[in-house]
Amino acid sequence: MGDSTVDFMEISRLGSKKFLRKDETLLRSIFYQMLRSHNVKLANKAEVVFALSQAWCSSKDPEEFDELEKYLGNLTPEEHLMVASIFSNMLNLHNLSEDVQSSQQELAERIGEVSRGTRSTDETFARLIKEGKSDPEGNAIYKALCEQKITLVITAHPTQALRRSLLKKNAAIRKILTDLHNNVKMNKFEKSELLDALHCNINAAFRTDELSRKKPLPQDEMRHGLSYFQETIFKGAAKYLRRLDTALQSIGQPPLPLDHSVISFGSWMGGDRDGNPFVTAECTRDVVILARNAACDLYFQEVEKLMFDLSMWRCNEKLAEYCDKKVADASHTLNEEHLAFERKRRNYCDFWRPVSRHQPYRMVLEDIRDRLHDTRDALHTCLNTNDSVLDYLKSRNAYITEEEILEPLLMLHKSLCDTGDTAVANNRLKDLIRQINTFGLGLIRLDIRQEAERHADTMNEITNFLGLGSYKEWSEDKKIEFLLSELESKRPLLPRTATYSEEVRECLSTFKIIAEMPRSSLGNYVISMATSASDVLSVLLLQKEANVESLLHVVPLFERLGDLSEAPNTLRKLCSCKWFLNHIDGRQECMLGYSDSGKDAGRLAAAYALYRAQVDLTEVANEFGVSLTFFHGRGGTVGRGGGPLHLAIRSQPAGTINGKLRITVQGEIIEQSFADENVCFRTLDLYTSATLEHSLDAPPVPKQEWKDLMEELSRVSCDKFRQVVYKDPRFIRYFKTATPETEIGRMNIGSRPTKRKANAGIESLRAIPWVFAWTQTRFGLPVWLGIGTALQEMVKEGKLDMLREMYKEWPFFQVTIDLVEMVLAKLDPAIAEYYEKRLTNPEEVGALGKELRAMFEETKSLLLQVAGHEGLLVTSKTSTLQEKISLRAPYITPLNILQVINLKNMRDCHEGVEGTHEKKSFQPKSEDMIRLLQLNSTSTSRSLYTAAVEDTVTITMKGIASGMQNTG
Amino acid sequence: MGDSTVDFMEISRLGSKKFLRKDETLLRSIFYQMLRSHNVKLANKAEVVFALSQAWCSSKDPEEFDELEKYLGNLTPEEHLMVASIFSNMLNLHNLSEDVQSSQQELAERIGEVSRGTRSTDETFARLIKEGKSDPEGNAIYKALCEQKITLVITAHPTQALRRSLLKKNAAIRKILTDLHNNVKMNKFEKSELLDALHCNINAAFRTDELSRKKPLPQDEMRHGLSYFQETIFKGAAKYLRRLDTALQSIGQPPLPLDHSVISFGSWMGGDRDGNPFVTAECTRDVVILARNAACDLYFQEVEKLMFDLSMWRCNEKLAEYCDKKVADASHTLNEEHLAFERKRRNYCDFWRPVSRHQPYRMVLEDIRDRLHDTRDALHTCLNTNDSVLDYLKSRNAYITEEEILEPLLMLHKSLCDTGDTAVANNRLKDLIRQINTFGLGLIRLDIRQEAERHADTMNEITNFLGLGSYKEWSEDKKIEFLLSELESKRPLLPRTATYSEEVRECLSTFKIIAEMPRSSLGNYVISMATSASDVLSVLLLQKEANVESLLHVVPLFERLGDLSEAPNTLRKLCSCKWFLNHIDGRQECMLGYSDSGKDAGRLAAAYALYRAQVDLTEVANEFGVSLTFFHGRGGTVGRGGGPLHLAIRSQPAGTINGKLRITVQGEIIEQSFADENVCFRTLDLYTSATLEHSLDAPPVPKQEWKDLMEELSRVSCDKFRQVVYKDPRFIRYFKTATPETEIGRMNIGSRPTKRKANAGIESLRAIPWVFAWTQTRFGLPVWLGIGTALQEMVKEGKLDMLREMYKEWPFFQVTIDLVEMVLAKLDPAIAEYYEKRLTNPEEVGALGKELRAMFEETKSLLLQVAGHEGLLVTSKTSTLQEKISLRAPYITPLNILQVINLKNMRDCHEGVEGTHEKKSFQPKSEDMIRLLQLNSTSTSRSLYTAAVEDTVTITMKGIASGMQNTG
Repeated sequence: MGDSTVDFMEISRLGSKKFLRKDETLLRSIFYQMLRSHNVKLANKAEVVFALSQAWCSSKDPEEFDELEKYLGNLTPEEHLMVASIFSNMLNLHNLSEDVQSSQQELAERIGEVSRGTRSTDETFARLIKEGKSDPEGNAIYKALCEQKITLVITAHPTQALRRSLLKKNAAIRKILTDLHNNVKMNKFEKSELLDALHCNINAAFRTDELSRKKPLPQDEMRHGLSYFQETIFKGAAKYLRRLDTALQSIGQPPLPLDHSVISFGSWMGGDRDGNPFVTAECTRDVVILARNAACDLYFQEVEKLMFDLSMWRCNEKLAEYCDKKVADASHTLNEEHLAFERKRRNYCDFWRPVSRHQPYRMVLEDIRDRLHDTRDALHTCLNTNDSVLDYLKSRNAYITEEEILEPLLMLHKSLCDTGDTAVANNRLKDLIRQINTFGLGLIRLDIRQEAERHADTMNEITNFLGLGSYKEWSEDKKIEFLLSELESKRPLLPRTATYSEEVRECLSTFKIIAEMPRSSLGNYVISMATSASDVLSVLLLQKEANVESLLHVVPLFERLGDLSEAPNTLRKLCSCKWFLNHIDGRQECMLGYSDSGKDAGRLAAAYALYRAQVDLTEVANEFGVSLTFFHGRGGTVGRGGGPLHLAIRSQPAGTINGKLRITVQGEIIEQSFADENVCFRTLDLYTSATLEHSLDAPPVPKQEWKDLMEELSRVSCDKFRQVVYKDPRFIRYFKTATPETEIGRMNIGSRPTKRKANAGIESLRAIPWVFAWTQTRFGLPVWLGIGTALQEMVKEGKLDMLREMYKEWPFFQVTIDLVEMVLAKLDPAIAEYYEKRLTNPEEVGALGKELRAMFEETKSLLLQVAGHEGLLVTSKTSTLQEKISLRAPYITPLNILQVINLKNMRDCHEGVEGTHEKKSFQPKSEDMIRLLQLNSTSTSRSLYTAAVEDTVTITMKGIASGMQNTG
Repeated sequence: MGDSTVDFMEISRLGSKKFLRKDETLLRSIFYQMLRSHNVKLANKAEVVFALSQAWCSSKDPEEFDELEKYLGNLTPEEHLMVASIFSNMLNLHNLSEDVQSSQQELAERIGEVSRGTRSTDETFARLIKEGKSDPEGNAIYKALCEQKITLVITAHPTQALRRSLLKKNAAIRKILTDLHNNVKMNKFEKSELLDALHCNINAAFRTDELSRKKPLPQDEMRHGLSYFQETIFKGAAKYLRRLDTALQSIGQPPLPLDHSVISFGSWMGGDRDGNPFVTAECTRDVVILARNAACDLYFQEVEKLMFDLSMWRCNEKLAEYCDKKVADASHTLNEEHLAFERKRRNYCDFWRPVSRHQPYRMVLEDIRDRLHDTRDALHTCLNTNDSVLDYLKSRNAYITEEEILEPLLMLHKSLCDTGDTAVANNRLKDLIRQINTFGLGLIRLDIRQEAERHADTMNEITNFLGLGSYKEWSEDKKIEFLLSELESKRPLLPRTATYSEEVRECLSTFKIIAEMPRSSLGNYVISMATSASDVLSVLLLQKEANVESLLHVVPLFERLGDLSEAPNTLRKLCSCKWFLNHIDGRQECMLGYSDSGKDAGRLAAAYALYRAQVDLTEVANEFGVSLTFFHGRGGTVGRGGGPLHLAIRSQPAGTINGKLRITVQGEIIEQSFADENVCFRTLDLYTSATLEHSLDAPPVPKQEWKDLMEELSRVSCDKFRQVVYKDPRFIRYFKTATPETEIGRMNIGSRPTKRKANAGIESLRAIPWVFAWTQTRFGLPVWLGIGTALQEMVKEGKLDMLREMYKEWPFFQVTIDLVEMVLAKLDPAIAEYYEKRLTNPEEVGALGKELRAMFEETKSLLLQVAGHEGLLVTSKTSTLQEKISLRAPYITPLNILQVINLKNMRDCHEGVEGTHEKKSFQPKSEDMIRLLQLNSTSTSRSLYTAAVEDTVTITMKGIASGMQNTG
């Protein structure tokens, strides 16, 4: 142990490469040791594979690749399965060691004033002041923070395939590694116990069937989301807000006002019914109740702790009156005995008997506690009945609005300050008040998301039934005119006795549920596939008809390029409706879609189209004096260069954020952003400082000639992209054969079905499988296709200098280029070529492959010229990233090879080519291997052989996917 | 950061004196800063007092003492109150810094191989092997541990005066100080937030009324006890048992068998009805249910975590059958829907839907979970009804015996081992199995304690009613003969239609409750004030008559010297009853009383009488082939020299422990032994290793001439003790005036009334107030009185060398001497003299005072000669202890002076001597001071003046008491 403290000091100086290696070897050696204890032969084979793979990764010479492929080629199908599982696990362990390394790295920065890297709020403050972005006293910072509001919306991401129990094990492994680092003084027994625990979790993870056989229900996803709040975010947010105050005080500013929280949380889990038939009205109701219940439990525990803390007897005038009144009331209602009995029954753990008058703070807290308990009981009952939640809560002594619980707490806070106990007031009590302002009584605000088409169908059935004609055939103007007149009229429109189609009925019962929910549990109503103003108005009308007391803000989501360019006009049309303008009273949100847009125009064109839409929309909004907030739905897989979130926000056009940011956090991003309290702290820290900067240090406005050049770039890249993807007849074939796209469908990933309406073209492909397929072959075509060609043309027109200038001066352009560069850094065309060689037949698509790889190289070199880097990711500050990626290659390559081998087998027995005999007689030796294969028995009739091949493919897909994601 | 890490290395070399000072100044400066923010004048006065007190403590010269007294003398009564509260708080903070220092000290030892101090198990192993106490492979150690069973019985201690909320704050302060030490790398923001939290807790503690105005109910004490199990012991025990295995493996031994736990826990809270009328049958019932409920919650959480851990699909034959059977049953009972709904209703946080067949471990765990939930519901219902708990639990699907829950868990453990996942089996699952073996389903086993007299009354009313004559007038033999005949007869004795006196009825309903409780929630039945065999038999009979299925072991507690010397005969008489002998089938416990015995014979005589009783009782037991276990009720206040628990166990006569130790942990010892996980770990560690040593390295058997000399010593000291306390006519007067004994009664300390039947003599005084009174004046007379005289006579007979030899060779003698020495180290006769000067009138008791102090000095010098120390506690290893004590003196002295001043006032207005006018017109300036004084309004008619004086006295008593206790 001796030397471990010694090398800690110089650990922080020469970067962390060696350090990463140490954890990794520890994990790998434990893994092998564990593997050997179960199956020595297999362990040796795994080591051979790893050694061969490592050799190739460092030398890149084809012979060693063939050796590796040959070795893997003549493993038995069941060894394929096990080797795939082994490397998937080892890769997972590798990622964990990366997680630990980066959170250690970040820890080191927080203490040692090393000058590089990400900026937390306190440095942001200092920087903003130093660069004169704010006055020296930091008043500008304070003012900005007082108006700043970031809403993080958690959504279930379709590929969130890691089962919760594996996530729990990862968290345990992460924690043990961290302890091994931080606990400098532990004796040999503690260390060996920690290593045992490590061994245990690695073993448990490996022995768990890593494929989740059942589709998770939205409620399950919701639980998963909730557990982050219960375990880290609830406390993390309070800790961060407290830190924000400390940082403000360090620059001589007062703490933020008590009732202002710069963060709040939303969710789509159980609210997003776009293309997800499992999200029914009943499901939405469940998740709201569950979240409210969880919030109730969290506040209940805090109040119980506060009851111990606030044991003082001094109080101010107001609190004294409150207590005297309570004593007066109590004396002639229920007697003390009954109350003590009542509490006993509720088995409160402390303070059965009513507290005495000279514990004034507890008198108030015990009332809050009782009411929280009643709220919980009421919510339980709601879960088991299905009448209106709001009415039921109103009929019990339950909390409904935040004011009801804040008012007594603020009274306590004031009383403590009045009696000179401000230190006590600003401890746990302040945290609680802040938590209520951050999380509200619903913990998270659920957004409802549905596609515009569905509302049109609903209106259509209504107008038909009422004999007003059929809504869907009306012109847009007639729709608007009709909707406005109905919104203004006091007369009901919804006919009672109509019978609706199944879908419309479900749609209407969602609006009914919205009307029956406490407002504080709901966020916005998001319309996906929004195209016109009537989409927004119809949702407002349907809410009105369902008796929604205060209507949810309706957020249109413009996803298709067509809708994007039309968005400003749509907004203009909306705002020019007098009714709408003063209904939204100066605030409107809208959402611009990412994930789908990259599919029909390529990355560059998509990114710029969005950039422009934001600028134009903000202009339109400013015309009408409307402050527009953009709701960013971030795709899970686009990367961030070292701390790219920061840049992603910075790349937003100036004036499109001004302190209001609403952003989704998807699937495994949730895991990474809130895995433990430190990471949670950092996540909140980054969002806050990035947003603050964007307000005080707005990014520069691009020059006109840059915009023209950008215009040109996206036109050329878009044409090239479409010309390859949609016009080239060979492409479809290439896509179907050189990637595992067709096999993705059969994996059950996430609760959302993969195909929209089913026809075979690319148009019908949802964005996720499209990007996912190319990631598997490490070719990532959707990211770079067309960019090279566009840059090439500009360089030919002698615009290289302007391109370089744009890269240096314009954050948007820089970020877009960096993002592509980063993806390229993870790609390896050699692997893609290998897929081609094994899975396609050359006459058909051979040439296309060669062309595509040439385009890849062209894009790579031009990109480097524009960015002015020698090699991919080779700049002064991101060398570690480059290494990290190469450190994974030896794990990923065998998975690619295994995937190719088994894809071939899968397709052969699909076409029924009569492979060699070993297909039929595949009888796995070990008896429990058979059991494993039967686990995947969608249909028992299929032979074990195909089950084995299929599971191997599924596992390799997961492994490669987790290998290709990267962390900050 | 710089300097704090630098001095950490050399911190461990030169002892910790300076280090302690650092925490202390930090706490004190924050305290002053806080005080100044509330009341500057008062803060300055407090500093003057502290400075004057410090000056005297270092110089000991009378002028400075008078200056201090004069300064305190002319403070106003309300300043008395505040200064008393200030020093009580500062002393408390000082103690906390000591706690932190010692747990840091212990931490350092665990890592750095420094050679001194306490021995934890792993060193004990090494030492035992090295000294040949066990074979080199450690088989003897393993065998001893397999038979070793330590039961820690927590009891509510009468002086446990610190309110729970203050304890919570102390725990928070302790944690912050620890964090400040351990968290070497934290940035300035984190530090300032920690210091804020520190400031907040110190402030909250100071502003809380530190006198608890209401007598805590036994259920409240029970809750307090429970919270230690929920917060530290439950996990701590599992951690320690795991460590024990690691230690065993390090010496090449296997881990302990799964179903053997070396520790279990008992409790008296809510069971000890000796002289506590609040402990009724109903109360006992409540605490049992509460403890069971708490156990249920703890296991429920563990099972839920296990459900995530055990996600593997491989299992052995047996588990597979169990699951197939369950699947078969399920298919034609309730459908899946209903079950999911049912669980939703129970709002399980995860796994609503029944788990699928290929998660076999979860299938078992979800059944366990459901049943735990049912057990919890059943217990809730029991709390609100009052029918038999056992019957009700039997009538529901509730767990009653440990086997029911262990059997499925062991099946899982075996299955994991069979499938090669032993690493997983031995992780959380093993911990849980161990926890169930340690804590059982009741968490702690409640002992019932009642005094023998009460059972005699019960028998008396029964025999009178049945016309068998009156039991209490029978001879002992007739009682035994009668009781035996009834125990053997199948005919009921208890008449149904009799009416009993209030007390006897309560006694009988306790036995009824015992019969209605699950056995695993009960421990033994302890008879206090036991004198004869019939006491034991009558309790056995009363249990039989109440239909107790399996009778509780009856443990006689011999407390009076008379009973002690008679104990062996009593045991002999018991064992010679054939029925009794085979009822106990070879195992019997008995308890020898400490606290009372010191009161009528002095410390030395008492200690030796107990020593002899243990030896004689063990002999008698061995005659009958009965293995006797002694139940040690340790008084809270006798100290442990550095790690004296260790010595206390070692000083037990050889062969009286042999692996079975049952020991009480009282009031604030609970706080110190289980405050946090480290301390909990150490506590269990010490008990285990001390007991292990006692078995393998038995203390030497004393030579006959030592015993004779010891006999002589106790006879002389006893005579001297009685001659002073009971025969000297001046003593009573001295005691009533020179100590605050009479005022103690009025404080409400603990739930037990202070006086037995009320007459004024010393005999009627309970041991606690007697010892407590002398501790207040720092004279501690009961500890040393008579020892000096005894030693003096032996020295005169030229036995000094033998005394020294005994000190070196005989652990019992050494411990007894050390204990007295340690108490002397804390005493200060100058303070006692000061009490005398101010509170007594010289003609009456002046001379006695002088004599007593002379005896004190004589005892001190002789003790040092025997022990061969230059000064008190001046040996190589306990210098720090000496300093620690002197570091507190400056806090305690002002409290003593304030106490004397106010005692005088209290007694004057009692006798109605017409003090000066300022009594009547005492009108405190600040308005909320008046409120504070009204808090103590036992009767509103008393003037504010007496209320102020009284509270001051109460606070000084608490302060001095907490100042005089010491930690390890």
